[in-house]
Amino acid sequence: MPQNIYDNDEFFAGYAQLERSKHGFAGAPEWPAVEALLPDLRGRAVLDLGCGYGWFCRKAVDKGAARALGLDLSARMLERAAALTPPEYAGRVVYRQADLDAPGFLDAPELSGPYDLAYSSLTLHYLVDLPRFLRAVRAALVPGGIFLCTAEHPMLTAPLHPGWQPDAEGKPSWPVNSYLVEGRREVDWIVQGVVKQHRSMGTCVNALVGGGFELLRLEEWGPTDAQLAADPRLAAERDRPTLVIFQARRRDA
Amino acid sequence: MPQNIYDNDEFFAGYAQLERSKHGFAGAPEWPAVEALLPDLRGRAVLDLGCGYGWFCRKAVDKGAARALGLDLSARMLERAAALTPPEYAGRVVYRQADLDAPGFLDAPELSGPYDLAYSSLTLHYLVDLPRFLRAVRAALVPGGIFLCTAEHPMLTAPLHPGWQPDAEGKPSWPVNSYLVEGRREVDWIVQGVVKQHRSMGTCVNALVGGGFELLRLEEWGPTDAQLAADPRLAAERDRPTLVIFQARRRDA
Repeated sequence: MPQNIYDNDEFFAGYAQLERSKHGFAGAPEWPAVEALLPDLRGRAVLDLGCGYGWFCRKAVDKGAARALGLDLSARMLERAAALTPPEYAGRVVYRQADLDAPGFLDAPELSGPYDLAYSSLTLHYLVDLPRFLRAVRAALVPGGIFLCTAEHPMLTAPLHPGWQPDAEGKPSWPVNSYLVEGRREVDWIVQGVVKQHRSMGTCVNALVGGGFELLRLEEWGPTDAQLAADPRLAAERDRPTLVIFQARRRDA
Repeated sequence: MPQNIYDNDEFFAGYAQLERSKHGFAGAPEWPAVEALLPDLRGRAVLDLGCGYGWFCRKAVDKGAARALGLDLSARMLERAAALTPPEYAGRVVYRQADLDAPGFLDAPELSGPYDLAYSSLTLHYLVDLPRFLRAVRAALVPGGIFLCTAEHPMLTAPLHPGWQPDAEGKPSWPVNSYLVEGRREVDWIVQGVVKQHRSMGTCVNALVGGGFELLRLEEWGPTDAQLAADPRLAAERDRPTLVIFQARRRDA
């Protein structure tokens, strides 16, 4: 069984206090970089894997998508998504509970697509079986369809005891260890013992390529100069990026 | 002018003492992983960019390549390559001095190919203009030709003052900082003040994709269990890999 930490009372309450929870895209500094990698969505069908509060489903429709399906493991996140979705999205945005790590999570005929875009924000690092997930995503896409996703950077997830520390010269640094030792990590984030899955960058890239995608772009997100001027705390992202963005295209022979 | 550290007396002498200098592939633990990504070389033309002592040129011919051209900036490395090359390779292995960071380094008609494989071992992190280099490599390849290269891992090259350090729990760790601050790094390796170029993984991948290659494989090299048992010092590679291997294919519309 997956951990479903987002349905934990304390986690759910803490998560609600994050900038990105309170303010949506305005609280997610990587959003402009992600948005720049989106295809034209007008008239398109969109799948949002790990939709959370549904921000992206609504944004996709705002950008002209014909329909958006948001899947999430957490019933409470989906309740909140429904509450945040005004009536004018009815029939174009649909939310469903799904375990993205389970076999056949997209097999139900009403979910199975095809989609022009599959999107996934900060979900990959919770999934145990990445190749199975990617097979399902690929099968749900039209030929040439785009998979755009963000994940925690492998440098962030690698260390067994993560935390900033000065280097020998006193510069704030992120001590990396166990980078090639993939698998379960328990970290304290909002609550204690949040379970994540660490994978190397190579494993992620090779899972995409081996899963029938062509990698179009890999971005290790860092702030622009303007973002840094507006929020100096983002300087840490240049020392050790928190997020990676993958843009890939379904490859067909 | 490039640094040409390999023609420095002290560096050249120190370099000669490395395991990989004394023993060639037997002293390069990543070699089996690199070798596994080679295409069939029988009858093929091979370009070795940063050939050093010429180990790979000779290996390519041993594997059936029709001819191999090795380019290197260092005259002393090329002298050593010539001395290490037995007469039976004559006419099939050719070494030439070239600055891989210079415009048009492959423009001379006798160098320009086409090649079925371009190979480059631990050279990328010395080059200032990676996109220009990749354009030259692509142009020298046949359609569908393979570019296989290794480079120092961005986690290795990122820190301003690199060095292992215990994390808060005492585990040997590699403090990363300045990861997204690309460009010149001076490190002490064999001699003081060796100049390298730091780039993020994303920049390398996007330079390949944007330069007309399809990324086939990205490997952050770590030892096999058997290698680790034979040489326990390799355990550090699992904490923070030193090398990355890119396998890419010339993309043609």
